[in-house]
Formats: sequence, C-alpha cells, structure tokens
Amino acid sequence: MSLWPRPSRRSRRSSLGVDLNAVLDLLGGVLRWVGLPFIAPALVAAFAGEAIWPWLLTGAATSGTGLLLDRLTAERRVERIGTREGFLVVALVWLVVPAFAALPFVLGGEPQLSKPVDAYFEAMSGYTATGGTVVPHVEQLGEATQFWRQLSHWLGGMGIIVLAIAVLPRLRVGGRQLLQSELAGPTETEKLGATIRDTARRLWSLYVGLTLVATLVLSLVGWLGLDPEMNPWQAFAHASSAMALGGFSPQGESVAAFAPITQWLLCLVMIVAGFNFLRLFRVLIQQRVAEFARDDEVRLYVGFLLVATALLLTELLTSDIASGETAVRLAAFQATSIMTTTGFATADYTTWGPLATVTLLLLMFIGASAGSTGGSIKVKRHLLLFRMVRRDLAQAAHRDVVVPVRASGWVVDERALRSAVLFVLLYMFTFALGALGLVIDSERVGGDLTPFEAIGASAACIGNVGPAFGFAGPYGSYADFSNLSTAVLTALMWLGRVEIVPVAVLLTRSFWRP
Amino acid sequence: MSLWPRPSRRSRRSSLGVDLNAVLDLLGGVLRWVGLPFIAPALVAAFAGEAIWPWLLTGAATSGTGLLLDRLTAERRVERIGTREGFLVVALVWLVVPAFAALPFVLGGEPQLSKPVDAYFEAMSGYTATGGTVVPHVEQLGEATQFWRQLSHWLGGMGIIVLAIAVLPRLRVGGRQLLQSELAGPTETEKLGATIRDTARRLWSLYVGLTLVATLVLSLVGWLGLDPEMNPWQAFAHASSAMALGGFSPQGESVAAFAPITQWLLCLVMIVAGFNFLRLFRVLIQQRVAEFARDDEVRLYVGFLLVATALLLTELLTSDIASGETAVRLAAFQATSIMTTTGFATADYTTWGPLATVTLLLLMFIGASAGSTGGSIKVKRHLLLFRMVRRDLAQAAHRDVVVPVRASGWVVDERALRSAVLFVLLYMFTFALGALGLVIDSERVGGDLTPFEAIGASAACIGNVGPAFGFAGPYGSYADFSNLSTAVLTALMWLGRVEIVPVAVLLTRSFWRP
Ligand SMILES: [K+]
Ligand SMILES: [K+]
Repeated sequence: MSLWPRPSRRSRRSSLGVDLNAVLDLLGGVLRWVGLPFIAPALVAAFAGEAIWPWLLTGAATSGTGLLLDRLTAERRVERIGTREGFLVVALVWLVVPAFAALPFVLGGEPQLSKPVDAYFEAMSGYTATGGTVVPHVEQLGEATQFWRQLSHWLGGMGIIVLAIAVLPRLRVGGRQLLQSELAGPTETEKLGATIRDTARRLWSLYVGLTLVATLVLSLVGWLGLDPEMNPWQAFAHASSAMALGGFSPQGESVAAFAPITQWLLCLVMIVAGFNFLRLFRVLIQQRVAEFARDDEVRLYVGFLLVATALLLTELLTSDIASGETAVRLAAFQATSIMTTTGFATADYTTWGPLATVTLLLLMFIGASAGSTGGSIKVKRHLLLFRMVRRDLAQAAHRDVVVPVRASGWVVDERALRSAVLFVLLYMFTFALGALGLVIDSERVGGDLTPFEAIGASAACIGNVGPAFGFAGPYGSYADFSNLSTAVLTALMWLGRVEIVPVAVLLTRSFWRP
Repeated sequence: MSLWPRPSRRSRRSSLGVDLNAVLDLLGGVLRWVGLPFIAPALVAAFAGEAIWPWLLTGAATSGTGLLLDRLTAERRVERIGTREGFLVVALVWLVVPAFAALPFVLGGEPQLSKPVDAYFEAMSGYTATGGTVVPHVEQLGEATQFWRQLSHWLGGMGIIVLAIAVLPRLRVGGRQLLQSELAGPTETEKLGATIRDTARRLWSLYVGLTLVATLVLSLVGWLGLDPEMNPWQAFAHASSAMALGGFSPQGESVAAFAPITQWLLCLVMIVAGFNFLRLFRVLIQQRVAEFARDDEVRLYVGFLLVATALLLTELLTSDIASGETAVRLAAFQATSIMTTTGFATADYTTWGPLATVTLLLLMFIGASAGSTGGSIKVKRHLLLFRMVRRDLAQAAHRDVVVPVRASGWVVDERALRSAVLFVLLYMFTFALGALGLVIDSERVGGDLTPFEAIGASAACIGNVGPAFGFAGPYGSYADFSNLSTAVLTALMWLGRVEIVPVAVLLTRSFWRP
C-alpha cells in the first residue's frame, strides 16, 4: 500500500526498458532450488570424514539468496516475462549458479582450487558440462569435491535440457525454429507437455532414467568382474558425466582407466545422449522408430560420427599407433567424445599426428544434436546451413526459381535460417576473439602458448568440449593459464553454453531502451 | 544454311541446359588476347640471351587456341549470355589461362619449375595474384621467368578488376549488391561507363596510371641514391606486384632487400591498391574526397589496418624483436601486406611470437576492399555481416521492429546479405576442407606438416595471400608439399579467386538441367 515501491520500480522499468523485478524474481526462483543439491556433497563429506560446513553453508547461502530475491520482488507473481527479460535471466543464471557452486572449493581450502578464479572456472566447467579442468591431479581432490564436480555436470545437464528445449526456443535463439522439424506443428513442444514445467519433467525423467540404466549397466560390468576398476561410484560418476556430455572424470587417466567393454559402453552412452531429447523421448518412450531413422539430423549426426571415426582410424593405423579392435575403439571413442562435446579420453590424442589433430579441431565445431546436453554449433545448424547453401546455389543458377529449404520433410522458416546464420557468425567471431585474447595475454605474462594451443583452447571452451591440445590436452589441465586467461576461458564456456545471443543482445543499445 | 549445326547445338543446349557454344566462344575471345603478352618475356629473353621459343610458342598456342575456339563457335556472335554461362566462363578462364601461362616454365626447362604441377601452381599463383611460390631460390630463376612471374601478377590484376567490378556483380556473387553502396543507383556501374568494356577501360587506365606513378616514384628513389638496391626493373616488378596485391618479388628476401623509404612507399601502394577501384576512381579522378572519407568500407578498412598494426607492434615491442621506427615499419608493412592479401615481407614473421601469428592468420580472413585486386572475404562483406548481426540482435530483443541493414548511408538489399552469407559459409567450408586435405595427404606421404601449417597454407591459398607459416613462410616456399597437396593448394587459389560460387554452382544438379 506504500506509494514508494511501485513508482520506483515503474520508473526503473520505464527508464531501462527491462523489467529487472521480473528478472531478479526468476533468478531467485532458480537459486532457491539450486541450493538444495549441496546436501549431497555434504553427505559424502560426512562419510569421508571431510568438512561438511563449506557445503551446507554454500547451500544455505544459495537458497537464502534465492529466497531473499523472491521476497524483495514478491509483490506480484511474474506469470509471463518478455523476451528481453528472458535473455537477461538466461545470461544471469549461468553466471551466478557457477559462482555459488565454486564457493565450497574455496571455503574448503582445496589446495588445487584455492584461487577464486580457478574455482570459478572449475564450477563453470562443471555446470556448463564443459569438463575442462584447472586441476592437475584430479585423484588428489577431496571426495566431496570429486563428487560435486561430477554432480554439477549432471545438474547442469538438466538445466541445459530445459534451456535447449524450452527456454532458448521461446527466445528464438536457434530456437523453436531449430527444433521445428521435430514438431508436427508450431506448438508441438506444448503438445509433448502442456507447459515448460511439464516438458521439462518428462525430459528430466528420461534423463534420470537413462542415467540410472547406464549406472546400473556399468556397475554390473564391475560386479561381474569384467572391469576391475569399475564400482558403483565410478559407474555413477561416468554415467552422469556422459549423459551431460560433460567430460569430468574422477580418474586422472579419464576413461583409459577402464576396460575396453566400459569404453565401448560409455561411447554408446555418449552417442545416445548426443541425440535430441525430444527425439529420444519419441523413439524410446513412444516407440516411433521409423520416424527416428528417417530424420535428417539423426542421419547427419551418425554420418559425421562415422566419417570422423574413419579419419581418426586412418591416423592410428598409418602412424602405427594402434591396430585391430584397439584402433577402432580409440578412434570411435575419441571421435564421439569430441564431436558430442563430451571430452572424455581413452588415450592422449595430443600425441597423435596432424590428421587426428585437425580432425578433432574440426569436430569441436560440429557438436551433438540440437536439444541435447552438448555444446558447439550442433548438427542441426550444420544441416540447415548446408541445405540453405544448396538452395542459394540453385537460385544463383536459376534466378526465378523460389525454393524453400527443407529438413526432415518440413519446410524451414526463413527466420530459422537467419537465426542459425546469426549464431554461427557470432560463434566464429567470439571464437576468434577468444584465441586472440589468449595470445595477447600470453604475450603480456611472457607465456609460451602456441598459436594452435590458443585456437584449440578457445574452440574447446566456447564449444563446451573441455580438453584441448598441448598442455590443455586430455591428460593435462588449464592450470598453466594466467588468471586473466582463465577468466577469458570461463567467459567462453559461459557464452557457448547460453548460445551467445542472450549475452550479445545485452551489448546492443536498443536492448536497454524502453 | 546447313541444317545440321543449328539443331545439333540446340539439342546440346536443351539436353545440358547450358549454352556451351557461348561459353567456348567467350573463352576463345579471352585466350586470343591472353596470348599477346607472351611477347614481353620473349623480348626479355632475347636481351638476356635466353631461349625465346618457349615464350613465342606458348603465346602462339594460346592465341591460336583462342582463334580456333572462336572459329568453331563463330556461327553467331554471342551478345548476351546467361548467368549459368557466365559462371562457367569465369571458372574456365581462371583454370585455363594459368595452364597456358605455366607452359614456358616447363618448355624452357626451368630447373625449379620442371614438374608440371609446380609450374601450374606458380602460374596460378601469378595470375590469381596470390604470390605463393614453389621456387626455393627465386634469385636463380631465368630473367624471362622472373619477368613473367611479375607480369602475370599485373595481368591477373587487370582480370581481377573486371571480374570483381563488372563480371561477378552481374552474376550476383557478392555481386552488384556488394558494390551497392558505391552506386548512386542500381545502374551506376553502367553510369561510370556505359558497358563492361567502358568500365573496364576506365578502371584499367587508373590501374595502369597508378602502376606507372608507383614505378616512377620507386625508380626516383633509386636514382636519387636513397635505396642502392632500387632500379627501374625492381621498381616495375614491385610496383606491379603491389598494385595487383600479388606478392611475387624477384628478391629472395622480398621487400626486406630494400631501404626503409622503399618499404614505406610500397606499404602505401598496397594500401591504395586495397581500396575499391570504383572508389579510387571517384576520389582520384573525380576528386570526391568527402564521399570517400565518409564511406563505411573505407573507414572499416583503415580501422582494421590500424588495429592489426597495433597488435603486431605490441608483439614486436614486448618480445624485443624491434623498436622505434623499425618496429612501426615492420608492423605496418606486415599488417598491410597480409590483410590486403599481398604477401610481401620485410621480415620473417614466422619467427615472431604467437600474438603476431594469430593476428596474421586472422588477417588472412579479412582481405582488402571489395572491387580491389585483393582476395579473401573482403572488408565489405565483414561490414555487411557485422551490420546484419547488429540488426538481427536488435530484432531478437524487439521482435516487431523491422529495420533494414544500412551501409555507407544506403539500405542494403537482403539478397546482398544472403549472398555475403553464402560466400562466407562456402569460404569457411572450403578452407576447412583444404586444411583437412593437406593433413590427409601429409599422412599419406609420411610428411611432417603441422596442424597449424596446414591451416595457414589453406588460409593463405584460398585467400590469395601467398606466404603462410612454417616452411611455407615468406622466406620459405611451397616446394616441400607433395604433388597432390600442390594440386589441392592450386585448386584453393583458383576457388578463392573466382569467389567459389561460380565453381560451387557447377556441382549442383540443377545447374545442368535445362
Ligand atoms: K564437455
Ligand atoms: K597475394
């Protein structure tokens, strides 16, 4: 009833053009829930005899901040928010959640994550399911920290599914149009579940279910004695990391620590997790197999994986690095791991030859399917742009012919093409700027970063892949980067995860105008 | 009056969809003229006491082939040709002319160009004004060969101006729309000169005039004793190479062989040659200075050059490679040389640090202005895409707002944006495929090409830059590549020069359909 708050908020809104009240309200709503999972590492800490308070305190601080934001903005419930508010929420959530997730690393005095910039990198890498690490010796981390790294991947994966299938499409980032061919009509996302909440719940059930199945199968492999290294904890750690296409592993050797059968199984989990979750729901729950097999993105995704495997296999065989089943396994695993932007390794691919290196670098720009937990450009955009190029070339020869672009039998909206082009241009520009930033900073501190390492690190971070080349390879770490470079790489992971547009719009003047 | 030829041609046309008769007629017309300049190296050979016959024979063969094609297709004069015929002519001319230009290298038994694949690379590098060389010791080449390499750049430059300003725009490759803002209306190319022939003549006069001025100024520098290495031959060789943004030099040390004043002058020539020739004509001949200074592409071109120079200067100063005027000169020269896709060098930049390397690699993707003799993506397309991204971001925030993209005060046609996008996507794809092809071939022959060298060579060839990194750096050569890789690099130069689309359309099925 006080006169003060409303006009104040109104005037802030009208002068800014963005409803900050709604933005903070939504951020608060997210943080309230994000505080809860900190109980899990606290339990692990209790069992392992480690300090519990960093986890409980952070959890309380996170949920507390959420409740506080809720309270500060609670005068009216925000039912519908605008596009601009949506962009700001997406950008803020993926900036703030990792900040809270990083706190226990610093509070707990973890020696390898004592610098706040390193802790933030690691937490960002966790929640964005990137999987690059600043920790040189992962095995020496505390047990709760180990657990939290893996869990943050898995929780991040849940966030990514909502982001990719329910939020970004509504903001038209790659958007609804990117998923268009998955939809029988313009409102099929709504048909699958009536609201964002329903869609999310169904896809989360699938995500949880697949993680459980993978964990059980891997545990069984250990229980049957087929892999002496495998136990329920390792099974959960790797199944959840693979489902999130994350790449963190509690093993310093990554998946090389396990038997061939485990490597093949994890390869399969990555391939499955790299499909669009809407498609997975259809084929696994609704049994629509023929539709799945006919889908253009599914085919291109599998095609890319086969070509990439063939290229890596060529390298391994001609360079006598491996032969027989080992060669096929190493090639298939690494191609899948990098293309789906997971980042697991079963070998130190930095010691392979230039053919493997160039192939892996190019794979970092492909990515998994749209609507998966993967990062990078994604197969769907490659498909759309390839079809667009083909159409435009045909029109170059026959000017009067007007042909729409088709994918998976559907006519693709021209806005979908424009938004794919916008994303790819921003992506390449940000990638190039990232690489340039890294070499400038290396020059500043007198480092010895090579041009290719800079390119690789920028590509691996913006693509949410994780490991790169040189010292930042799968058995190395990002620890050797300066604080400033670590911050640049953290920003690249963040930008890649939110698909750049939600941040880039914040830099336009018109965004802030009423 | 015979019934036979007409139906035959008709039926060929209707079954193929492309008027091959017209295509060969035009190709013949070009070849007839391309045979004439071989007289010049023949004269040089005569004075130097070298064999004349390879030059005269090739000249006769070239013009003879032209006349033969003319005769075979002479039944009717082709007044207007279709778009598809235009694409085919462009693709063929830039494939066939260098083949003839390569003949004297092989016929004359030039030891460093004895392999046909090497001779073809060198001739392609000459005519496309790329400037990469397979010759390890340029100083040891025969004098006529030396002269021919430089002349082929300069002749290629004339072809490029016609291609860039009169031919490709009509084929809508980047096209008329790319030059749109240079035009007061949609038909200004025609206004400048009423026909392609008139436009070409005027711009060629400018090209010839500027080359003469540059040659005279450089000769004067030598005559005044300001540069002991400079003489009229070196003046012509470097002035013509700079005007064509070519990069060949008769000096093994490239422009490092000359005094600082010469280096500064050549830097200026490259900057001038990097402007759009229509713009140059307006500002130099028609004195429209204010319009020039206000132009968006002019400003972005200069802006890019300044930023690039600053980045290289940072490298040189912080790494203690040079200081004072030397540092500024080396930085400005190399930034200009690589960005305008010339390829001259005043230092071995491969020994500079990663900041310089990454900067130079990125510059290879920028290029000079549209309508210049330069290659690569070109500043105009960067400008258009940057404006398009800004517009699309603004629309992402404000959906209902429909804003056109503007450049240099003009509203840019959406087709111009689409054609810029098409080009950039094809360019990046071809570049990536080129790099992959080089490492695959290196694996095949057991070579030791590094990933970065492969990336650099692909970028330098498709961008018509010339020198790359590693052994293909400015003081190295492309001689160490296998025959197959040399062919790949030759194809990349060709594709970059014709701006890919004329070749890519040939690969679509619809091109060949009636
Ligand atoms: K990852
Ligand atoms: K060049």
